[in-house]
Amino acid sequence: MFFHDRRLQYKVRVDKPNPQFARLLQQAIGGIEGEIRVCLQYLFQAWGNRGPAKYRNMLLETGTEEISHIEMLCTAVALNLEGAKGSIIDEVVSSNPVVEQIMGGMDPRHYLSAGLAAMAADANGVPFNGSWVVASGNLAADMHANVMAEATGRTLATRLWESTTDPGMKDMLAFLIARDTMHQNQWLAVLEELGGPSAHPIPNSFPQEEEVSSVAYSFISTNINMPEKPIARWTDGTSIDGKGVFTYEHGTPMGEEPMLAPPIREGYAQAEQMINKKDNI
Amino acid sequence: MFFHDRRLQYKVRVDKPNPQFARLLQQAIGGIEGEIRVCLQYLFQAWGNRGPAKYRNMLLETGTEEISHIEMLCTAVALNLEGAKGSIIDEVVSSNPVVEQIMGGMDPRHYLSAGLAAMAADANGVPFNGSWVVASGNLAADMHANVMAEATGRTLATRLWESTTDPGMKDMLAFLIARDTMHQNQWLAVLEELGGPSAHPIPNSFPQEEEVSSVAYSFISTNINMPEKPIARWTDGTSIDGKGVFTYEHGTPMGEEPMLAPPIREGYAQAEQMINKKDNI
Amino acid sequence: MFFHDRRLQYKVRVDKPNPQFARLLQQAIGGIEGEIRVCLQYLFQAWGNRGPAKYRNMLLETGTEEISHIEMLCTAVALNLEGAKGSIIDEVVSSNPVVEQIMGGMDPRHYLSAGLAAMAADANGVPFNGSWVVASGNLAADMHANVMAEATGRTLATRLWESTTDPGMKDMLAFLIARDTMHQNQWLAVLEELGGPSAHPIPNSFPQEEEVSSVAYSFISTNINMPEKPIARWTDGTSIDGKGVFTYEHGTPMGEEPMLAPPIREGYAQAEQMINKKDNI
Amino acid sequence: MFFHDRRLQYKVRVDKPNPQFARLLQQAIGGIEGEIRVCLQYLFQAWGNRGPAKYRNMLLETGTEEISHIEMLCTAVALNLEGAKGSIIDEVVSSNPVVEQIMGGMDPRHYLSAGLAAMAADANGVPFNGSWVVASGNLAADMHANVMAEATGRTLATRLWESTTDPGMKDMLAFLIARDTMHQNQWLAVLEELGGPSAHPIPNSFPQEEEVSSVAYSFISTNINMPEKPIARWTDGTSIDGKGVFTYEHGTPMGEEPMLAPPIREGYAQAEQMINKKDNI
Amino acid sequence: MFFHDRRLQYKVRVDKPNPQFARLLQQAIGGIEGEIRVCLQYLFQAWGNRGPAKYRNMLLETGTEEISHIEMLCTAVALNLEGAKGSIIDEVVSSNPVVEQIMGGMDPRHYLSAGLAAMAADANGVPFNGSWVVASGNLAADMHANVMAEATGRTLATRLWESTTDPGMKDMLAFLIARDTMHQNQWLAVLEELGGPSAHPIPNSFPQEEEVSSVAYSFISTNINMPEKPIARWTDGTSIDGKGVFTYEHGTPMGEEPMLAPPIREGYAQAEQMINKKDNI
Amino acid sequence: MFFHDRRLQYKVRVDKPNPQFARLLQQAIGGIEGEIRVCLQYLFQAWGNRGPAKYRNMLLETGTEEISHIEMLCTAVALNLEGAKGSIIDEVVSSNPVVEQIMGGMDPRHYLSAGLAAMAADANGVPFNGSWVVASGNLAADMHANVMAEATGRTLATRLWESTTDPGMKDMLAFLIARDTMHQNQWLAVLEELGGPSAHPIPNSFPQEEEVSSVAYSFISTNINMPEKPIARWTDGTSIDGKGVFTYEHGTPMGEEPMLAPPIREGYAQAEQMINKKDNI
Repeated sequence: MFFHDRRLQYKVRVDKPNPQFARLLQQAIGGIEGEIRVCLQYLFQAWGNRGPAKYRNMLLETGTEEISHIEMLCTAVALNLEGAKGSIIDEVVSSNPVVEQIMGGMDPRHYLSAGLAAMAADANGVPFNGSWVVASGNLAADMHANVMAEATGRTLATRLWESTTDPGMKDMLAFLIARDTMHQNQWLAVLEELGGPSAHPIPNSFPQEEEVSSVAYSFISTNINMPEKPIARWTDGTSIDGKGVFTYEHGTPMGEEPMLAPPIREGYAQAEQMINKKDNI
Repeated sequence: MFFHDRRLQYKVRVDKPNPQFARLLQQAIGGIEGEIRVCLQYLFQAWGNRGPAKYRNMLLETGTEEISHIEMLCTAVALNLEGAKGSIIDEVVSSNPVVEQIMGGMDPRHYLSAGLAAMAADANGVPFNGSWVVASGNLAADMHANVMAEATGRTLATRLWESTTDPGMKDMLAFLIARDTMHQNQWLAVLEELGGPSAHPIPNSFPQEEEVSSVAYSFISTNINMPEKPIARWTDGTSIDGKGVFTYEHGTPMGEEPMLAPPIREGYAQAEQMINKKDNI
Repeated sequence: MFFHDRRLQYKVRVDKPNPQFARLLQQAIGGIEGEIRVCLQYLFQAWGNRGPAKYRNMLLETGTEEISHIEMLCTAVALNLEGAKGSIIDEVVSSNPVVEQIMGGMDPRHYLSAGLAAMAADANGVPFNGSWVVASGNLAADMHANVMAEATGRTLATRLWESTTDPGMKDMLAFLIARDTMHQNQWLAVLEELGGPSAHPIPNSFPQEEEVSSVAYSFISTNINMPEKPIARWTDGTSIDGKGVFTYEHGTPMGEEPMLAPPIREGYAQAEQMINKKDNI
Repeated sequence: MFFHDRRLQYKVRVDKPNPQFARLLQQAIGGIEGEIRVCLQYLFQAWGNRGPAKYRNMLLETGTEEISHIEMLCTAVALNLEGAKGSIIDEVVSSNPVVEQIMGGMDPRHYLSAGLAAMAADANGVPFNGSWVVASGNLAADMHANVMAEATGRTLATRLWESTTDPGMKDMLAFLIARDTMHQNQWLAVLEELGGPSAHPIPNSFPQEEEVSSVAYSFISTNINMPEKPIARWTDGTSIDGKGVFTYEHGTPMGEEPMLAPPIREGYAQAEQMINKKDNI
Repeated sequence: MFFHDRRLQYKVRVDKPNPQFARLLQQAIGGIEGEIRVCLQYLFQAWGNRGPAKYRNMLLETGTEEISHIEMLCTAVALNLEGAKGSIIDEVVSSNPVVEQIMGGMDPRHYLSAGLAAMAADANGVPFNGSWVVASGNLAADMHANVMAEATGRTLATRLWESTTDPGMKDMLAFLIARDTMHQNQWLAVLEELGGPSAHPIPNSFPQEEEVSSVAYSFISTNINMPEKPIARWTDGTSIDGKGVFTYEHGTPMGEEPMLAPPIREGYAQAEQMINKKDNI
Repeated sequence: MFFHDRRLQYKVRVDKPNPQFARLLQQAIGGIEGEIRVCLQYLFQAWGNRGPAKYRNMLLETGTEEISHIEMLCTAVALNLEGAKGSIIDEVVSSNPVVEQIMGGMDPRHYLSAGLAAMAADANGVPFNGSWVVASGNLAADMHANVMAEATGRTLATRLWESTTDPGMKDMLAFLIARDTMHQNQWLAVLEELGGPSAHPIPNSFPQEEEVSSVAYSFISTNINMPEKPIARWTDGTSIDGKGVFTYEHGTPMGEEPMLAPPIREGYAQAEQMINKKDNI
């Protein structure tokens, strides 16, 4: 069950409202690297968690924290949009100042649809999409999904930090960047508990003898010019999971040219497709 | 530039066509864990790669291989759908056999829209979505995205392997599972070259002194009952990136209750929202 | 800021796991009538709220409650999917029992993608979409959006209640149905405070004298057979908002046939479109 | 069956073409508050209407009118885009004037994809989505969906009216705003016929004795600081539907910590998840 | 402006309601080959039409007809869903008959979300998407889009016709199939007026001398095995547009290996990507 | 199976980087008229092709070529975005130059999400959608889909060509425009082989005697004013497919007003909908 405090997890202050920056912040709310995604991702992982309960509990802790981050960012968007108000009042001589604001890079829906508030969308107004919420039922796979989310999320946050000179916004982002540092480490800590590199290949519960072992540790080059083996970690030596040895080979078709049956009558293909397969190669 | 051979990378054989299994295979084609995603993801990462060219080259190699995997899976779908044909011809006494087939779990669009062939969609017919293609411009973040894609992808492949008793299909999936083993190792090999855990926090080019350092390595509990510190890797000891020490704390609001300005006239809020803020708390 | 208790808001018990019912429950999680929608909708309305703070506070209260409802439903999905396990173990003689389960109406992605857990999607596997989160900045419009969400949401919940005979599931749904009763009343209570019917037309801050008043309270029939005025509340008497009198009229074009300029050269229309407009009518 | 007249329902005149305003108008065409949504929503409600035919007939009348509104707005977009032409011809000295126009806030796809015409998308180019069409089979729920659509739609229209100084555009919007006034009243009139507030809780055909009655009229606070009961309509007195009495309480978990079974073998979770549940709490 | 008659364009009769067939019919309503798409496509083409008005008028005629087709299909869905009612009443002994129906292949949202009526979605419940509405501003391109829509649409309709034995449904589909015959011919008739094959390449208003003419009529083989020229219309003789001669060649890279600049500091790539480009090839 | 050469199919040179033009190029990558669509469309048609193998082979050839076009365009986007770097360094005096760039019309996600590289999205940042990939199983329908894709694609390319003065970009686009010329001719060549206009109505394998023949070649006017027959190819003479004679008629309802059964109890409609149907007309 969930509870709230009216106060924010960290202070959100906008010194100079900037409707354009409000648009950029949307990426951190409703974008694929954003906070709605990690919030739902950690919570869905917790709610579906099977196995040691300590992981469920931890996911619940951090999933809950992420709601607070959405809240901070939505507040920041609303405060930045108050800049739209200023210009409308100040530049009342201009023929249609709202349009000017919007045309200067603001998301027009911040005014048209939301009345100067945040939306569940990214910096281009593309709505948040539930398909981004990854909860696979495999704990190690999920932890990698989480590291990835925090790595792209922290990269986004640093770019936002770079995009503003507002001290309040820089401070808020510096907080969120720090939390992303922790969260990356946190998911890596779980991976360490799960065996680190030797947890691979994920899932580790599938019997590896069922794989086509001849290609399980082989870098297959698809370069038509068949270049020599490059000097790289992935072409030589023991594999990272410690369960094989890297090799390098030039790819070549191991299968045949596929042959499909002719169309069935009920599929209403064109009549010309119905002729005998043998005749038409 | 790209080229093809008409033969498949690996043999695709369906011993007993099964339209229901065709539907399941769609998840591996057009689902978020599927091959269109990794194919485009590796190619977009290659085409946008900045920095050492060896990574660009490798991404191009494997991105190209993934096209061959889409091809194999689409062929497998088409062959499994030839089972729909069988039943239609055999059970011609039934009042409407196509509907029966479809109602037995086949994706109806395999017949209605594709005439017994694969589609760029997942196992529920939800179309592939370009937002799943992650290419962040940060090499380490991208490698984590790739490990995650191959971890969820291999998990999917093992579940598909479990869902069929067809020897041909099991063989094809055993090949794809093996390739996922390699690809997980391959992306981990890049991460090892980039420094392994010490590459974190990603991006490592952002000056960490700009973070709010007090919360950069702290597990913040949001549990209302303030439980004791759990015994876990993420609450004690040196952080995984080696740059901090894990601490544990009970979260508490560090910000204030947010105060937004009243609506602007041009926003056409309800008149009752326009009253003086101070009066209405 | 947000907190949680590991216990659920209300008990979730599944007496007889049913993977098919798990699929139906998804509509209440990630569907347009579902709990992710109302949760985000109330929270975004709170976070963007301008005007009397009491409404912000209330939205925050109930938005937080809705997270607990998502949690309950996700737990219910996971428990119902444990039925998939049973059948797999019991019917091990069957050639591929997982496929049979899936083909019996289970969402295949519950197994393939989630490993027997809930997803942020609806009953057909269509992902949750952020566009459903309505927060317009006009409090009365938002309250109507909320009444509508709870009305369609409660209707969905009663249909789910009808679709199961499991006592545990019926109990959980009876709780959620009751909460929807309260929430409908709650949003209506705000509307009563805002003036009830006389709050219309929304927004009430737009000067009505700017409307084309001749059509502001007129039912315009578009029926080609020009039927007589029906006996109905919307064709006679004072309008519901008390600001006009309903009239009834047969629609007729008040505009002209539109005339667009010919294509510009840079638009690369077909050459045949470039001829003089006057000549080609 | 449907018919048309080549003339528009109301005159559409653009005095000074403005490609930027064309972009804003898209929200009223293909946005969630737009005319495609209400058009399809009323028509689908009519086509699926069960019960008294007078409601079906009315929905058909107004659904048909909304097609005329889409037509007016699409014409307005096309006329506003003729401004793009002017600037291209006038500013021919500039190196690439089309790009300048586009970069000045025009939707680039208005030129690139549509050749200066309207599209079935919103102001950010996000396509219209059929999930917005609400037709629940419950007449009262649908009427609330319609009031909500007209409330957010009229709010949008007033903001568009505010965003232009073009007399022709202001006149067209003043017509549409007036129609939204009527349509809000119209759906409210149906709700009055259905019993007004006493129609709640919707659906009113579900036996309320099946609800968990103890929470059916209770405002549950989720505020961690347990504030005192606020002075508000929704915490005291008879409920709006007249069927209960509002109470106020501090939320507390009524359920338990959920316990899921360990993963099944066929789910290919990580091996570490398979250990005995009891041992790992 | 638009009008309606309450009667349908053609009779819709369902002799034996079939909820499963209702699901299949959805593809013809809200699928990419469906009637909402062609309806909006022809209307948007009409509303944005520039050039000879006769085409605008014709598009308006047929776009209006398509609304009547959506109406027929939605009625057919609603009537087929009345079969769900039957089984619920008849098989009341079964523990949860609605679920059984749904699990037998019915779209669960037909019951859960729509109360036994049609939705703006396809046969898998994927919502209609406005991106499918093609109106390019080039009349010939649009006519090809229309031929394509009617060709895939008629193919779908024949497959639906094949999927039912209900005489009423077969009759309705036979009507729609006939209309698709006409519409294919109609758009081809416009193309004939525009010059037929010689209208290509579309757009014909772009000066062909600006193309890289050496590859404008050349079939470029990308087959790694460099097969001999096949005997086919597209490798020999005058091109279909009459403006070139088909040739056949084996593709070979005409460009170079691309070289991107190293990442900018503000992009926060990984530090390892920042090294000097020359050094790392 | 697929292979690559590191060199591009054609040279990609950007003389003056332009982040705004990078945004426009996205339409040709991830838009509905773009190269990902045609690439996947031709490959899926090939992989599902049934009937004469020569068409499969050809589709494979050209589908492979299209990957090379995506590659060229992604490279062009990355090179154009290097302009963002320049301005950031040059205009370092400005308070936040990145925001200025973005607000000048650049896609903000090119910086925020991709670190100055291409994305699988259109010019408005809307992600590529797999529903655009048309492969119907009917060869003639597919060829029309392909002509349409190349017609709208070439129109887009000419508009992009018009939108830049950069010689390198104009050269690359001139190459792509030429390839679109060939591809239009190529698909038309298949249609010629399949019988040209006489291949219609598509599918030609459906027995036309099953159609409602009275309306199969009739232009049905839906104009309420019943205009006279226009002088046009589609109202007179032999139909284009040579199988009928065009006629012209004024549409009139051939069906009746639909009558749906009242709601079922389990649908939880509003009680007022349950009354006897006969009484409420």
